[in-house]
Amino acid sequence: MSEGITLEELQLAARNHGMPLEALRHEITPLGLHYLLVHYDIPVVDPAAWRLTIGGLVDRPLELSLDDLRAREPVSLPVTMECAGNGRAHLEPRPISQPWLAEAIGTAEWTGVPLAPLLADAGLATDALEVVFTGLDRGVEGGVEQLYERSLSIADAEGDGVLLAYACNGEPLPPQHGFPLRLVVPGWYGMTSVKWLERITVVAEPFEGYQMITGYRMREHEDDVGTPVTRIEPRSLMVPPGIPDFLTRRRFLPQGPVTVEGRAWSGWGPIEHVEVSTDGGASWHAARLGDPPGAAAWAPWWFDWNAPEGEHELCVRARDATGRGQPEEPPWNIGGYSNNAVQRVPVTVTA
Amino acid sequence: MSEGITLEELQLAARNHGMPLEALRHEITPLGLHYLLVHYDIPVVDPAAWRLTIGGLVDRPLELSLDDLRAREPVSLPVTMECAGNGRAHLEPRPISQPWLAEAIGTAEWTGVPLAPLLADAGLATDALEVVFTGLDRGVEGGVEQLYERSLSIADAEGDGVLLAYACNGEPLPPQHGFPLRLVVPGWYGMTSVKWLERITVVAEPFEGYQMITGYRMREHEDDVGTPVTRIEPRSLMVPPGIPDFLTRRRFLPQGPVTVEGRAWSGWGPIEHVEVSTDGGASWHAARLGDPPGAAAWAPWWFDWNAPEGEHELCVRARDATGRGQPEEPPWNIGGYSNNAVQRVPVTVTA
Repeated sequence: MSEGITLEELQLAARNHGMPLEALRHEITPLGLHYLLVHYDIPVVDPAAWRLTIGGLVDRPLELSLDDLRAREPVSLPVTMECAGNGRAHLEPRPISQPWLAEAIGTAEWTGVPLAPLLADAGLATDALEVVFTGLDRGVEGGVEQLYERSLSIADAEGDGVLLAYACNGEPLPPQHGFPLRLVVPGWYGMTSVKWLERITVVAEPFEGYQMITGYRMREHEDDVGTPVTRIEPRSLMVPPGIPDFLTRRRFLPQGPVTVEGRAWSGWGPIEHVEVSTDGGASWHAARLGDPPGAAAWAPWWFDWNAPEGEHELCVRARDATGRGQPEEPPWNIGGYSNNAVQRVPVTVTA
Repeated sequence: MSEGITLEELQLAARNHGMPLEALRHEITPLGLHYLLVHYDIPVVDPAAWRLTIGGLVDRPLELSLDDLRAREPVSLPVTMECAGNGRAHLEPRPISQPWLAEAIGTAEWTGVPLAPLLADAGLATDALEVVFTGLDRGVEGGVEQLYERSLSIADAEGDGVLLAYACNGEPLPPQHGFPLRLVVPGWYGMTSVKWLERITVVAEPFEGYQMITGYRMREHEDDVGTPVTRIEPRSLMVPPGIPDFLTRRRFLPQGPVTVEGRAWSGWGPIEHVEVSTDGGASWHAARLGDPPGAAAWAPWWFDWNAPEGEHELCVRARDATGRGQPEEPPWNIGGYSNNAVQRVPVTVTA
């Protein structure tokens, strides 16, 4: 990190939070440990007055209460979610926004209503191209006052596992995770899973809202139109072994056998290989891979290490079924998105 | 903030988190929004194997399972908790540790067993002076490997409302808040409320553990022995009105009537006055004060403001029944504790 974090970045870091990496031990992240990014403010919502509208280019516009949604057949799905800006603070120069290191992750079990049958009930017009999701959180960004809004193609909106979720880990959605309803789009970075959802609008033109055209694009310079940020790149993270120093978070562990453990995921396909290095990436060794709790959730892995006394740098990297992997050095982009460079954990092994 | 936040501070800020201030709207902070400081790592605890021991200078040492504790008469208590380091990042020069701004707060309803009857069951020896509380979280701090430990005088340990809590907001303690059991000491800064509690030891000498003698002392320079950090100084915080700019968090609101709201608390006595300034502290006006949900919890307040177009700085300050108040400028100390200087919220009011 070349330069110190600014007050503006710290204000964001104090509000939002990552998942402490020792919580990788949990297959389903306990409430309160899942990463959290609130774009503007957590809005106040009266669930009795709240309605979801489905409109725009549909044959039968719908207005649904929370009870209407709960009356439909529910689906529960474990989904690993990650912020598109995870890893941003490791980039140099550092893009100025929420300064994530590696912890902007979590896996919740979301319960709700599949979106595709709801869209079928509304009936898409023949010229329908995209579905726009509008949340209730309002703010100013890049000088533009806005509600938080994102769109998906019809095919992506109708995709497997796309849910309107009203519960998380068996509890009603907490306010910070989108109460009373949020979109959950498995495999995509978290910005897609619009919280405090109030309006779904089917449109015939590509949606050009701020969060599609200005935010969440891979751009190399300010004049670059760039390409949209979409699915989650592969990543593996380990539970840092041993015990930490409070301030530096450096790890200390005794010499001898230790099982290093963690989880790996990708929004593009199943994880096929996880490799661990104990020498800073000079050599790599296969980890044992377990089954994920669902197609859109992380897979556990384990690596047995006979830790010798001394200073070491542990690294881990994953590769998915599409051949996508993790770079040793992060490729830079202007918004600081999708930095899935390998995790590096320095450890001191004592006699 | 004179200098940029370092990587070490950012690592702490990414793990720990404050309460987004719009959550001041909730009398009881929803799970996941309460501030969180984990000193070392969240430990793994098997609740079936876990036991609480009460030993040292007692007549009848006790070993209690979670079921034993649940079988006793439970007490539920809303308690406002605050980190002793809240406000640290506003000090100049900035003490290097968890870089809190103002959000290290929360009010939970804790349920558990009062401590005093348990100590009576164990029977204190005549030379008993202090009670030492040992948690399961282990780490290195100031070069010393340690379990997290803090002590209280017998009188403070037997004080009103001191609980061993196994539930939070009606749910089993989340891992990050001390599962399966934590101490809750109403009115004291959070470092006192030891999490992942495993051992209670009655001793005849002042306990000289790291978190008593080195950490959590008000010291003016490195050689100053200082005085212990104990109870929570008065503070009032407002929900920042209007809507935020994403990056700067600056607030925007339309001109006209607005009710500014917030909550105020003190660990020394009931809140008696809350005052608001709309001109950066040049003039102060009384806010309406409501009843707190309990003696150890924050009190709500409201202030009606007819916001005129332009740039303003809103401030709020509280005073308690003991006469303690909030300074306009924070007094500095080496650990960055107890900074309860008045909150300042710049707002832009538009026509």
